Amino acid sequence: VPLPEKALIEQIRRLAGPSRLKQAGVGARATHTRSAQIRTGIGDDCAVLRLARGSELLITTDFSLEGIHFRRDWHPADSVGHRCLARGLSDIAAMGGDPVAAFLSLGLPRDLAQTWAKGFLRGLLKLARRYGVSLAGGDTAESRDGILADIIVAGTVPKGKAILRSGARVGDAIYVSGELGGSAAAIERFRARSKKNPNARDYFRHFYPEPRVELGRILREKGLAAAMIDLSDGLSTDLAHICEESSVGAEIQAESIPRGRVGNPARDVELELALHGGEDYELLFTVRPGKRIPAQVAGVALRCIGRITRGRKIVVRKTTGVRSELAPQGWEHFRR
Amino acid sequence: VPLPEKALIEQIRRLAGPSRLKQAGVGARATHTRSAQIRTGIGDDCAVLRLARGSELLITTDFSLEGIHFRRDWHPADSVGHRCLARGLSDIAAMGGDPVAAFLSLGLPRDLAQTWAKGFLRGLLKLARRYGVSLAGGDTAESRDGILADIIVAGTVPKGKAILRSGARVGDAIYVSGELGGSAAAIERFRARSKKNPNARDYFRHFYPEPRVELGRILREKGLAAAMIDLSDGLSTDLAHICEESSVGAEIQAESIPRGRVGNPARDVELELALHGGEDYELLFTVRPGKRIPAQVAGVALRCIGRITRGRKIVVRKTTGVRSELAPQGWEHFRR
Repeated sequence: VPLPEKALIEQIRRLAGPSRLKQAGVGARATHTRSAQIRTGIGDDCAVLRLARGSELLITTDFSLEGIHFRRDWHPADSVGHRCLARGLSDIAAMGGDPVAAFLSLGLPRDLAQTWAKGFLRGLLKLARRYGVSLAGGDTAESRDGILADIIVAGTVPKGKAILRSGARVGDAIYVSGELGGSAAAIERFRARSKKNPNARDYFRHFYPEPRVELGRILREKGLAAAMIDLSDGLSTDLAHICEESSVGAEIQAESIPRGRVGNPARDVELELALHGGEDYELLFTVRPGKRIPAQVAGVALRCIGRITRGRKIVVRKTTGVRSELAPQGWEHFRR
Repeated sequence: VPLPEKALIEQIRRLAGPSRLKQAGVGARATHTRSAQIRTGIGDDCAVLRLARGSELLITTDFSLEGIHFRRDWHPADSVGHRCLARGLSDIAAMGGDPVAAFLSLGLPRDLAQTWAKGFLRGLLKLARRYGVSLAGGDTAESRDGILADIIVAGTVPKGKAILRSGARVGDAIYVSGELGGSAAAIERFRARSKKNPNARDYFRHFYPEPRVELGRILREKGLAAAMIDLSDGLSTDLAHICEESSVGAEIQAESIPRGRVGNPARDVELELALHGGEDYELLFTVRPGKRIPAQVAGVALRCIGRITRGRKIVVRKTTGVRSELAPQGWEHFRR
């Protein structure tokens, strides 16, 4: 391990803190039963985790690459750290799982200011603590160009209870949480302006998205969601994933889609952004006919936006009567 | 998901094959009891794994970055894929664990030839199959510069039986498997020559290192290793890790260190490379006094190279009587 990497690892280990490992670990008296314990964290060849009996393991990995997923002139370091972990937590939420531990592979350019790594870790670890997640391992390396982060989140779910993309059936209602398009609208505004360093407060849901972990867990516990996915690539793409894995189609009502508000003064985002914009990290799920869904769960509004249909097409209907097929428009991040 | 990424994911899914998932999965009649099953692989928000009762989970992550860990003009694509997974498997071996599933985050430059990704996956999946490991998920992205891979390997170990770096005690014998320095010597030769595309056959252990999974598992099963680490950063650095985590020192005998042979005609590598060169992926472990270690386990030679001592220094002794302190010389990969 070259010296700068050793220093970085020690910084991560110090910031991640033995207290977190202990709290989740063997000797701890947790106030609630945890679904897993970290037996060995940072500082060995592997992390060692003990899962509670009757639980299955969830694992997800997500890149956060400079110039692709974030820009250093737009995103403060702590926002990059927050968003990096939020991506992984959101995947656990989409299975109805409990996040347990995170692992971080971090590649930094040689000339990067030390404060950047500190800010990044602060943002990541603040979110981790909020969800009782330990940073339990990872890797570090020098990067030739740009900041490279890969986040791995491990979680648990009771045996056989993970909510899959493949669970949708014809006749299911389609629901989304929160509001859509706000994150993509923020990027559109940043692009339109020459101004650097946008005000994080005016675009909070873009800079500090909240993964819907509680919501996902409650939907699973109450048996409400039949199929589920998180909205990371955009509604049109992610709904297509559910339809593909479940071999079904869908019809959605344009006016029912809850649209985000961004900027100062705040304005509703355009329908196109709510349909195709990515990185809102809301949950999209289907519900069997006859099941009642509350208007709000875990503080998050839930809205019915359509139905699962026969066939393989996704159709958008407007109140004017116009119907059009919705093609998945892949979310292109910051690609130029 | 943009189209080129979608194509890449489909390629990975096709090459990884449903058969592998099935074989490790629920419906399969495995010829031996597996320590884990893949319930859901590629194609959902998370992979879902079920561990056997009484086992703990091991997780490790390792970067393979172009220009840092490999060079496209030296390493064939299938060697990069092989080495990428070997790094993770070697970490599982170092805990005495059984590898179960791998997850790959892969960032590729837009202009990379399709054949490269195919070769990379072929090398990775060939090694995965050999160890019964399923490629169960990951992430893909465009890279602005160079190929970026992050491999995550999940494995299992019986409860409380993982072999940690912190298990060494004063008086333990220090053993290594195989031969050291061969991988670093290969790089030295590549550098010295203007010639591109070195012959992979002459430097096989560099291009296709064998992770010591069987050896690690047997040492754990028979209770032979008290502390263990894999030699990825070099003997001087990795022995220092064991000493640090165990709060001990070490004395090693220079002439006892088994040195690799490389090139054509093959020659013994220099002592310096055996002491400091990385990426041999052999195992370094300590053994309580009185325990007998066979000369060979799972086809790999084992050699006693010294003893764990009081204090915190690592000393190298030569038969001439010269003693010198060994400073960890971090392995710098291809850093220029």
